[in-house]
Amino acid sequence: MTREPARTAIRLADGRELLYFDERHGIDRSAADLRSIGPIAVHSELRHDPLVDEWVIVAGHRQERTHLPPSDECPLCPSRPGYSTEIPAPDYEVVVLENRFPSLIDPGRCEVICFTDDHGAAFADLSHERVRLILDTLADRTKALSGISGVAQVFPFENRGEAIGVTLHHPHGQLYAYPFVTPRTLRMLDVARAHRDDTGRDLFADVLAAEEHAEARVVVSGENWTAFVPESARWPVEVHLYPHRGVPDLAALDDVEREELADLQLDLFGRFARLFGSPMPYIAAWHQAPTRVGRDLLRLHLRLFSMQRAPDRLKFLAGSESAMGVFINDLVPEETARRLRDA
Amino acid sequence: MTREPARTAIRLADGRELLYFDERHGIDRSAADLRSIGPIAVHSELRHDPLVDEWVIVAGHRQERTHLPPSDECPLCPSRPGYSTEIPAPDYEVVVLENRFPSLIDPGRCEVICFTDDHGAAFADLSHERVRLILDTLADRTKALSGISGVAQVFPFENRGEAIGVTLHHPHGQLYAYPFVTPRTLRMLDVARAHRDDTGRDLFADVLAAEEHAEARVVVSGENWTAFVPESARWPVEVHLYPHRGVPDLAALDDVEREELADLQLDLFGRFARLFGSPMPYIAAWHQAPTRVGRDLLRLHLRLFSMQRAPDRLKFLAGSESAMGVFINDLVPEETARRLRDA
Repeated sequence: MTREPARTAIRLADGRELLYFDERHGIDRSAADLRSIGPIAVHSELRHDPLVDEWVIVAGHRQERTHLPPSDECPLCPSRPGYSTEIPAPDYEVVVLENRFPSLIDPGRCEVICFTDDHGAAFADLSHERVRLILDTLADRTKALSGISGVAQVFPFENRGEAIGVTLHHPHGQLYAYPFVTPRTLRMLDVARAHRDDTGRDLFADVLAAEEHAEARVVVSGENWTAFVPESARWPVEVHLYPHRGVPDLAALDDVEREELADLQLDLFGRFARLFGSPMPYIAAWHQAPTRVGRDLLRLHLRLFSMQRAPDRLKFLAGSESAMGVFINDLVPEETARRLRDA
Repeated sequence: MTREPARTAIRLADGRELLYFDERHGIDRSAADLRSIGPIAVHSELRHDPLVDEWVIVAGHRQERTHLPPSDECPLCPSRPGYSTEIPAPDYEVVVLENRFPSLIDPGRCEVICFTDDHGAAFADLSHERVRLILDTLADRTKALSGISGVAQVFPFENRGEAIGVTLHHPHGQLYAYPFVTPRTLRMLDVARAHRDDTGRDLFADVLAAEEHAEARVVVSGENWTAFVPESARWPVEVHLYPHRGVPDLAALDDVEREELADLQLDLFGRFARLFGSPMPYIAAWHQAPTRVGRDLLRLHLRLFSMQRAPDRLKFLAGSESAMGVFINDLVPEETARRLRDA
């Protein structure tokens, strides 16, 4: 059993759902959305790529989405007298809302999760309690979205930094509920299935054991989690955080695992922020098992990575990566692990 | 039969090979490399990613590579009195040389191809004759590199524009001779093989026929080639150029196909340069069949794409693309095709 945060659902003026998640129960979250906004025209479709048998999302309406607004027009800050934002309340802890410019529509769904009402904060600045609340919220949303008929995989992630195309600075993450299993996940399932057929063993347990045995690439570890730079890291700075127990998704984590995870996440994000002297752009991606298949094959793990390769240099995906899928990493994983341990 | 350009090989001061390709025979290309440069320490290794069964290149020495030098220190310009570059001659047409900072080493190989000695030019500015010479050069190099024992696939490409991380402005492309078949190519081979088993037909012929029949996404076409925005385009601006004949690589093209290809390439690159009013960054990627397997399954094609989605906006690969392999395209392929036809 895990404790349950307070959860209050409201509807925004255009019909979208918004959920407040609070540590304390009993806070009044009834403030109404006073804006007169109607539904936007959403044109999103899935197209099949016949050359590789994968789905591509074509979402023409997103071209018009909000792009780096000035901070006094941030749509994810709380509403204030005279200025109504996406969030009607005058303050909040964690908020989840349906994306106004979704990439995925029925049966898929795109949600935004606001980590704090402090516009200038970063994930690494949050308190342990807040990170724990975020984890409980992501677990809640994973369970809820997994229950939608037609949703095949739930993907919680955070894009951080203008260098990777973030269009809103307010600290937030997102959840994509895909109506198909994603290409990377399908690939991992194929490999994990073949590994089990060949050896009788779990692929993720074997990778974790090999990294723990090698030691050279481990960054931090605890009773229930280990973080390491993978031997074959694709990105200049890349860390994988594995639970020691084979669980399919965030909803399956117990209280003890969530508590330690909150600490280790803060530790890792702090190391990322300090590595090059100033905070770097990153993507934090939660790999979860699909909702219906392969739940005994794919272990939950966080993949935290940055395209920054030096204080003033970014790694770009050029011909080899973008066209052929072959990554070239200019940083040596063992060296990156050492620098992260020292950071 | 295709005509053969003049081809002169020399060795640079550090032992690397350099080849001049000239339209006319008899030009003196004997100028020696006068620099006192020794071999650089190259630390490149292939690492296996156990989660997806793919190879990643770790190349620590590349961190020190030449980065956006001022134009009077360009290493790809011809040498001049008092300043020796990578190219000893005082002028040249097309030059191929081994990369001083290679991602791949024995049995792989990385080559640079200089398109012109005019530092300020772009591919779209070249003459028909020069593009034809470049194609003959790429065909020559494809054949030569394919003959190296251990080389599994030859990939000619051009990265253009600082926005995608180009480190040298001089107009040039590259050739990667991979010691393995790349992930995207393996995937296309699997799909093409399954398509042949299911239908008895060729996947690329069927895709081409479907695009020609649909018409809406065709940009330009000729007797031997058709260029279209694929129905499931991943990038904001993406064009695929297919030969009508099923050939595995550039070396297999005949004289008539090369002549028309030179015209169509110039036409396409010109449309890319005009689309948003100013030249945009792009990747031009030649997909060729592997050197030893699947040569009857994978048809040669050019994939030309840009991450630019508006005159002042770039598409970034964020969480969905980078972590899950799910691309979201904000531009609708039929609309992009129309704009390219009008450009």
